Amino acid sequence: MTHAPVVDVLGSKYGVGETVTVKGWVRTRRDSKAGLSFIALHDGSCFDPVQIVALNTLPNYNDVQRLTAGCSLAVVGTVKESQGQGQAVELEAVSVDIMGWVENPDTYPMAAKRHSIEYLREYAHLRPRTNVIGAVTRVRNCLSQAIHRFFHERGYFWISTPILTASDTEGAGEMFRVSTLDMLNIPKTEQGDVDYRQDFFGKETYLTVSGQLNVETYCTAMSKVYTFGPTFRAENSNTSRHLAEFWMIEPEVAFADLSDVAQLAEDMLKYVCKAVLEERADDMAFFAERINKDVIKRLESLVSSDFVRMDYTDAVSILQASSKTFEFPVEWGVDLSSEHERYLAEEHVGAPIIMQNYPKDIKAFYMRINDDNRTVAAMDILAPGIGEIIGGSQREERLDVFDRRLEEMGLSKEDYAWYRDLRRYGTVPHSGFGLGFERLVAYVTGMQNVRDVIPFPRTPGNASF
Amino acid sequence: MTHAPVVDVLGSKYGVGETVTVKGWVRTRRDSKAGLSFIALHDGSCFDPVQIVALNTLPNYNDVQRLTAGCSLAVVGTVKESQGQGQAVELEAVSVDIMGWVENPDTYPMAAKRHSIEYLREYAHLRPRTNVIGAVTRVRNCLSQAIHRFFHERGYFWISTPILTASDTEGAGEMFRVSTLDMLNIPKTEQGDVDYRQDFFGKETYLTVSGQLNVETYCTAMSKVYTFGPTFRAENSNTSRHLAEFWMIEPEVAFADLSDVAQLAEDMLKYVCKAVLEERADDMAFFAERINKDVIKRLESLVSSDFVRMDYTDAVSILQASSKTFEFPVEWGVDLSSEHERYLAEEHVGAPIIMQNYPKDIKAFYMRINDDNRTVAAMDILAPGIGEIIGGSQREERLDVFDRRLEEMGLSKEDYAWYRDLRRYGTVPHSGFGLGFERLVAYVTGMQNVRDVIPFPRTPGNASF
Repeated sequence: MTHAPVVDVLGSKYGVGETVTVKGWVRTRRDSKAGLSFIALHDGSCFDPVQIVALNTLPNYNDVQRLTAGCSLAVVGTVKESQGQGQAVELEAVSVDIMGWVENPDTYPMAAKRHSIEYLREYAHLRPRTNVIGAVTRVRNCLSQAIHRFFHERGYFWISTPILTASDTEGAGEMFRVSTLDMLNIPKTEQGDVDYRQDFFGKETYLTVSGQLNVETYCTAMSKVYTFGPTFRAENSNTSRHLAEFWMIEPEVAFADLSDVAQLAEDMLKYVCKAVLEERADDMAFFAERINKDVIKRLESLVSSDFVRMDYTDAVSILQASSKTFEFPVEWGVDLSSEHERYLAEEHVGAPIIMQNYPKDIKAFYMRINDDNRTVAAMDILAPGIGEIIGGSQREERLDVFDRRLEEMGLSKEDYAWYRDLRRYGTVPHSGFGLGFERLVAYVTGMQNVRDVIPFPRTPGNASF
Repeated sequence: MTHAPVVDVLGSKYGVGETVTVKGWVRTRRDSKAGLSFIALHDGSCFDPVQIVALNTLPNYNDVQRLTAGCSLAVVGTVKESQGQGQAVELEAVSVDIMGWVENPDTYPMAAKRHSIEYLREYAHLRPRTNVIGAVTRVRNCLSQAIHRFFHERGYFWISTPILTASDTEGAGEMFRVSTLDMLNIPKTEQGDVDYRQDFFGKETYLTVSGQLNVETYCTAMSKVYTFGPTFRAENSNTSRHLAEFWMIEPEVAFADLSDVAQLAEDMLKYVCKAVLEERADDMAFFAERINKDVIKRLESLVSSDFVRMDYTDAVSILQASSKTFEFPVEWGVDLSSEHERYLAEEHVGAPIIMQNYPKDIKAFYMRINDDNRTVAAMDILAPGIGEIIGGSQREERLDVFDRRLEEMGLSKEDYAWYRDLRRYGTVPHSGFGLGFERLVAYVTGMQNVRDVIPFPRTPGNASF
């Protein structure tokens, strides 16, 4: 491949007068009365297309004048200082090789006009060609690279926890069953149950809802680990914040308490947001112009602010003392709802909040009981403009306390045998958190719906493509 | 967290005489008659444990003498030049805080002795505490980080292709069905088929076998993209090379022909192997000593060799002309088997081979037909010591040729409507390849079975943990 990415041409890696080849797709074509055409050519490497100036002296200028959005070209051109505004350089075409036409431009689904975001979802295979999904794709990539880099620089190991699991133990949500049984001829046991012994794995098997319990096994051997992989919820939620298939990041840290992982979460969020501000200014400018005017300010503010730590118990007092009327009344022991979280983060504090020490009855069985015996060492990070973005906890590492908690919650020791082993053999304090990747991408880009920040969203009734 | 990772202590980040805290697990304890104990403490941060010298003047020296493999400790110690061999420094304990005992050391499954690799598989939750699985984990992480870095540095975007899919189109292997239907009460249509309209996604849905077709949609918009995610095969294969759940890397490159992606694959393999040699010398020394004595030489040779390109047709002639007797006879048109591939790479060439231009009848429908009309622009990379490690191709971008091929193979245009759209609208030449991540980790570490290079292997009859 001897062609240059558009980002390199616009970034002035080639001097005025140099000849370069670019390859990409037409975004727009505009003909001038002076006998030349301007073609905006994009190749995905950055937000802006490069402007091609095609003179009517080109042997195939007739064809050039028929170019429409989506046609693919290889252009050899000479770098010129641009006359127009918005970019420093343009290419004067030496040759324009048309690689692929658009079959019937009038019905091309991505024709050059504004499309609604809902319309684009119907064309998930073509929408990456649009400005908005192209920008989302680059920011999503930037965030994922920054996440891996952040953990790698700090000595964390990436662990791929299993997607398929026969442990139905976390209870974090409804699960999808995975099977190879013949659905028209389900084998039965003598008792009339499904005979999963005849299924592929010999047991009823599901898609994972979280890698946390599995990654704790690596944490209690390698000290600092994280997952970054897909997780699944079979919940019939048709909201802008839910997907049936989404990606999660779950660090788990040995010898760390709640405060340590709260700090880790704060550092990580700042690190990855800073990376986006530095590396994807082009796309962020577009999001600020078209999607949410506050989106850059919001990131800058997150990067420079100190996150405020607040106990759940204090938050309840603040909410009760506020003059604001809430739809759901607040009292100690209830789960805070979105209106409460946003009031606290946006109006009361005006910065991200690390909310800590929740009532144990509204949190999961594995969280560490505090000395007051009514709260657990759990934390959520609430960010202005989105609410909860991270949830974490210190894990109960004391076998006797853990066993009492299992009993309280009616869970069986046998089901958690391997998880208990981590507490039976050289147990250590450890803590971790979970970050839903799509919620982060939505937050960073200002996109309203998580369906538009993952390439092929899976929701109830939709697994197309 | 104010403690130091073992890797920093051994790497002499702290000077002799400095006091540091380390936290980890006991690998071994040895008492000296001189009234002191030597404890090897590991924390996963590197292969070697740090040696703790615990004198009998410690107030809890009686407890120290009861420590066994797997106990967890926080040790404050003074850095000393080591008297023993193998490491430059050791820690003389100022205090030894025992955080977690091992319940019944006699039955601790990871007690300090040699365990068979098959035995360790039964304890997938504890095996990361062993030398071998710890080393695998660090090398696996190093490879995954290097892969992301390689593509990121070259302007590729990571694309998360869907895990759940209603397209049963690739035919690359047996698929797992994903459903939330009640298995004891399957809804039926009037025709007596399963009524998947009542299932979660409203259609029969599977786990993906490859992200390739999906990622082509992003390739034909963003130019350079790659996937790195889990894929699934419901094949009843109980071999050392097959998993039901495994991770794949699939780059897809616009404006690239077969030769371009063959070069990309060669560059990538060299880049990631070099990263392991440079960053994980400690673990590789262990693999060379315990697993496969050639493992470092093999990597060094891969990094420094030029991969040899060879046409399938020439390979058949070479095999036919060789004096070697093969179990499976060779003639033009057959798929090469492992014995042929290994003969070519190990005996005939003695370097990795990029085998190109296979008969179209043994390859997939999407591969680009060559001008001879009997071969396709496909390539496999065959490495000495393992055989096929990468498979790729140029994709058929010509709509008329693609449609003829669909017809030839009895596939329907409707099923491939969205894939055909990529050829209808601004089609471009493009190519890509697939790399099975676990096969790469097995190759690099010398581990014989892919079940030992993924944290929780899924195979027929096994989805435990």
